Amino acid sequence: MAEFLNLLSIQEVLSRLLDGIRPLETTDRVATPMALGRVTSTDVLALESMPSFMRSEVDGYALRARDTHGASATLPAYLRLIGEVPMGRPAQMQVTAGQAAAIHTGGQIPQGCDAVIMLEDTQISREEEIEVLKAVSVGENVLRVGEDVQPGQVLLPRGQRLRPQDIGGLMGAGVLTVEVVRRPRLAIVATGDEIIPPDRQPTVGQVRDVNSYVLEAIAKESGAEPAAYGIIPDDYQELKTACQRALFECDGLVISAGSSVSTRDMTARVIAEISHPGIIAHGIALRPGKPTLVALHAGKPILGLPGNPVSATVVAMLLLVPSLMRQLGRRDLARRRSLRLRVTRNLASQTGREDFIPCRLTQREGESWADPVFGKSNLIFTLVRADGLLVIPGDANGVAEGELLEFLPFDP
Amino acid sequence: MAEFLNLLSIQEVLSRLLDGIRPLETTDRVATPMALGRVTSTDVLALESMPSFMRSEVDGYALRARDTHGASATLPAYLRLIGEVPMGRPAQMQVTAGQAAAIHTGGQIPQGCDAVIMLEDTQISREEEIEVLKAVSVGENVLRVGEDVQPGQVLLPRGQRLRPQDIGGLMGAGVLTVEVVRRPRLAIVATGDEIIPPDRQPTVGQVRDVNSYVLEAIAKESGAEPAAYGIIPDDYQELKTACQRALFECDGLVISAGSSVSTRDMTARVIAEISHPGIIAHGIALRPGKPTLVALHAGKPILGLPGNPVSATVVAMLLLVPSLMRQLGRRDLARRRSLRLRVTRNLASQTGREDFIPCRLTQREGESWADPVFGKSNLIFTLVRADGLLVIPGDANGVAEGELLEFLPFDP
Repeated sequence: MAEFLNLLSIQEVLSRLLDGIRPLETTDRVATPMALGRVTSTDVLALESMPSFMRSEVDGYALRARDTHGASATLPAYLRLIGEVPMGRPAQMQVTAGQAAAIHTGGQIPQGCDAVIMLEDTQISREEEIEVLKAVSVGENVLRVGEDVQPGQVLLPRGQRLRPQDIGGLMGAGVLTVEVVRRPRLAIVATGDEIIPPDRQPTVGQVRDVNSYVLEAIAKESGAEPAAYGIIPDDYQELKTACQRALFECDGLVISAGSSVSTRDMTARVIAEISHPGIIAHGIALRPGKPTLVALHAGKPILGLPGNPVSATVVAMLLLVPSLMRQLGRRDLARRRSLRLRVTRNLASQTGREDFIPCRLTQREGESWADPVFGKSNLIFTLVRADGLLVIPGDANGVAEGELLEFLPFDP
Repeated sequence: MAEFLNLLSIQEVLSRLLDGIRPLETTDRVATPMALGRVTSTDVLALESMPSFMRSEVDGYALRARDTHGASATLPAYLRLIGEVPMGRPAQMQVTAGQAAAIHTGGQIPQGCDAVIMLEDTQISREEEIEVLKAVSVGENVLRVGEDVQPGQVLLPRGQRLRPQDIGGLMGAGVLTVEVVRRPRLAIVATGDEIIPPDRQPTVGQVRDVNSYVLEAIAKESGAEPAAYGIIPDDYQELKTACQRALFECDGLVISAGSSVSTRDMTARVIAEISHPGIIAHGIALRPGKPTLVALHAGKPILGLPGNPVSATVVAMLLLVPSLMRQLGRRDLARRRSLRLRVTRNLASQTGREDFIPCRLTQREGESWADPVFGKSNLIFTLVRADGLLVIPGDANGVAEGELLEFLPFDP
C-alpha cells in the first residue's frame, strides 16, 4: 500500500498530460474518399440544400392532399392519372384538382402537388384513373428542399473522425475534398542492453524487442505515423542524443525502457534533461505499469514506458491513445470506450492502485462475462489470449465473482 | 404487418448467407509488422520457448529459497553478496548455500539459485552482505523456460485478426512473416437513372452517388479491397454485363439500386440471372432495408441494396460486414459487437419486423443512453449525426423510455 501512497492516479496523470498537449495545427487537404479515419480540422459546411428539389419518399402517386379528404377503402377518392414522373429528370407536368401523377421514390414532386399517396393505399380503377383508399395530409411522404441539410449548416463538426457514412454524406453534398489534421508523427525508441532486434537469435540473457512493434501498431490504429528509432544502447549520452533528435523530428516520443533499474533510471534522467516543462509523473498508482514516466516538452507528450510488454501495452492504451487523440483534436476524446461486465471469479487487489486484468470474453447466463486469463500477468501472450482489460478500481480491496466492473475491449 | 408476413428475419437471412459463402483459400505472406488488421490463414506455431532462459521477474537478489526459511524483519537471514547478474548476457557466477547475487528484472537466474527476493524485502547490512527480511518459496519471482510459450504451441489461432499485441507477440517469438488470408475483393456497382457522380452538379431530379462511397469505406474497414464499377445506366443488358464482369473479377458484389421500382425490379432480374444457386431473400423483415436482395453465386455473396443511403448503410452493416468476415475466415464472426443501453424516449414499432434506429449517445444518471436522432430516418445525415443503431426486436410492439435495448455502435 505504502508504495502507491505518493503516486498519482492514472486519471490525474492523464488529465495533466492532456492539459499540456498542444493539438497539431497543420493540416492536409485530402480527396474525401481517401479520408476514412482522418480527423476534420475545421467545421465542414454545406454549400447546397439536400435534397435540392422537393421529392417523393415513397412509390405512389403525387396529388393534392385536399383531393383525398375523407377518402377510405369503402369510399375511395377517384383521381385522373395524367402521367408518370421520370427518374433523374424534372417532372414536366402540371397537376390540377382531381388529378394525380405516378411517382417513384426520389422523383420530383410535380407542380401543383403537395403530397404523395403510397402505392399500397391505392387501386387502379380503370385506364387513367386511380382509387385513393386513404386520406393524406399536406406534405405527407414528401421531402422538402433542405430537409436533410441547409446551405451553411455544419455537415461535420471539427474534430470528427471520418466514418463510412461521413465520407458518403460529404460526397453526397458535393464536398469532394476535406481538410484533415496532419497525422501526428510518433517517435518510438527502445533501450535496454538485453533487447535485440527480432531478426536476431537471442543468446542467454537477451530478449527480442516486442514493445517497438506493439507501439507502432497502436500508433497506426490511432491515426498517427510511427517512426521507429531503433534500439539504443544503455549509454546516457547516446540515449539522450537519440531522444533529442527523435523529439525534434516528431510530435511525441515514447521510450520503451529496458527492465533493469539502471536503464530505467537513465531513461528518467534523459527525459528530465530534454523536456521543458518536464516530468509530470514518475510512477503511477496502477498495475501493471507503475514505473511509468510521463513528461511534456513544448506541447509534445513524452512517455517512458516500463520494459515489460504487458505494462507497456496497458500504459500505451491508457495514456498514448488519448494523447494522440488530443493531438488530432478529436472531439470524442472524453469518451472512454468501455463496457460494464461481470467477472467470472474473485480477484485480489490492493487499495490505492488501479488494476488492469487481461480477460477473455466468455458466455454465462446468456451474457458476456470477463474471464481473467490464467498465467503470469507480465507475459505478452497473456494479452494475445485476452479480449480486453478488466478494471479494478483503486478504492476496491479485491472483487468478488459476479461483480459488475468496467471492461476496456481491445477490439472495435 | 401483413407486408412483413412472408419475409425472412435478418437473422435467418444472415445465417443462410453465411452458410453459402466460401471462405477465401489464397493467402499472402506478409512481414509481421505490416500485418496489422490482417487475418491469419493458419495456426501460427511457436518455434522456440519464451522465455528462452530462466529469468527474474523483479529487481532483487537471486538466492536459494531454503536459505530464507523462517526469515522475518525481526529475524533476518544474512547472505553473502557474490556479484551482480549483467543484463543481456549470461549470469556467469555459481551461487552456493548462504550466498546471493544482485539481479534485475529480466536477468538470468544464476546457477544454484531457485528464487528471487524483491529488493524491498531486503536491506544492505554491510559490504557484500544482505539481510533478507522475508522467506521466499522455490520458484518465487522466477520465470521458467517456456512459461509464456512452449515450442510447437499455437501462438495465434487461425482466423485471428491481428491486433497490436499479436504483432508484438509474434515479433517477440521471432515470427518475422505471417501467412494471412488474401483481402476479399468487393465489387461495388451503382445503378439508377437519377444517380450522378459526386463531381457533377445535380440538376432537378438527380442526386449524387452516396452509397458507392459508404460501401467502399465499409469494405476497407472490414479488411476488404473495394473495386468501384461506377454508375451503370438503367438498362437491363448493360447492368447484366457489368454485374457479370464484376462478379467474375471479384469475390463478392454489392449493387446499390436506384430508388425507382423499375430499377429495383431490373436489379432483381439481373441478380436472378447471373447467380447460381441464386436468390436467398427478396425482401427482409427489417426497417430500414426491407427491399434488400440477397443471393449467392459460387460461394460469393451478392447484395442488392436499396437506393436509400440509410437503408443501404444499415443493411451493409448487418449483412456485408459479416459476409466479408466469413470470407476472411474470422473466428470472431459469431460475436455481434453490441452494447445494451436504455432509450431516452418512447418509440413506435411494428410487430414482425426489426427496427434499427439511428441514435446518439447521451449521458443520463451517469450512464450512456441511446437518444434517437430527430428527423426523417431515410436521410444520410441522420446517420452522420448518430453514434450507432438501436435495435427494436421483431416481437416488440413499440418500446418505452428507459427500456434496455441492444445498440450497435458505429465506432470502435
